[in-house]
Amino acid sequence: MRARDLAEEYEAVSFDSDALDAARLMAEHRLPGLLVLDERGEPKAILPASQMVKTLVPSYVIDDPGLASVIDEKHADRLCESLAGRRVGDCLPRTTAPPPIAAPDDTALEVAALMARVRSPLVAVTEKTRGGSRLIGVITASHLLHELLRSASAPAAGTSP
Amino acid sequence: MRARDLAEEYEAVSFDSDALDAARLMAEHRLPGLLVLDERGEPKAILPASQMVKTLVPSYVIDDPGLASVIDEKHADRLCESLAGRRVGDCLPRTTAPPPIAAPDDTALEVAALMARVRSPLVAVTEKTRGGSRLIGVITASHLLHELLRSASAPAAGTSP
Repeated sequence: MRARDLAEEYEAVSFDSDALDAARLMAEHRLPGLLVLDERGEPKAILPASQMVKTLVPSYVIDDPGLASVIDEKHADRLCESLAGRRVGDCLPRTTAPPPIAAPDDTALEVAALMARVRSPLVAVTEKTRGGSRLIGVITASHLLHELLRSASAPAAGTSP
Repeated sequence: MRARDLAEEYEAVSFDSDALDAARLMAEHRLPGLLVLDERGEPKAILPASQMVKTLVPSYVIDDPGLASVIDEKHADRLCESLAGRRVGDCLPRTTAPPPIAAPDDTALEVAALMARVRSPLVAVTEKTRGGSRLIGVITASHLLHELLRSASAPAAGTSP
């Protein structure tokens, strides 16, 4: 089992994508995060849904928890104002590390070792192109776990009746 | 909208649960993580799927990436050995922070502020009982985002035709 076979489609946006559109994408599909690609289509960041929540909540509310309880619910529509006109790149924390990248021919164990080393919830699989690299898909931790446990419980080739 | 209305069911295990069973639960339902409860049913940790992958992969493979590529795939069944006889508590990193906890009457904005402050992918909702507290459910970041955006785009009460 190679990384190319494990890779699945994953919702991706670019640094220039509209922040509100990205938030709606996460919300509608209940995604824990989005992959952020640069202008060449290379994965450069993971935008977690919790970070989007953080962008929605005014900073004076985050700093003063007591305020959150007294703000009228009817004023929730103001939350969207904090996203209006903003780009995905504006929502990312300044110290955003790029996601770990696997090559298409990497084995499942190589992907697992990479994921374990950097403690990432996902690994992006890209293949080299003339201009740079192209995203093939994403391997999430739970999908990798599924494949590792499946191959571990399956009988070795040639031993089945 | 209060935390009790936002809370959803979430897969939970205890510190003493079998590690292999927990890994299979994550794998089968493609969960990014599990909630870990103590013997009184109070949420004490989040066990991410990537941490379970880390537990599966032998530490000498994590330390020496080159080894991962040369290990025969047929020996993947050895991976399960690292989980055999282990408990969920053994899989957690030593420095595990408990998940953020909201009270049933907290507003959506209070939950959002809490999530933003601690940068957690989820908030557990518990209610006080005589003996301690009881888990009502979990609010994930994407679910909260969904509700915040929904209430922001819905017309205020009394203004609809």
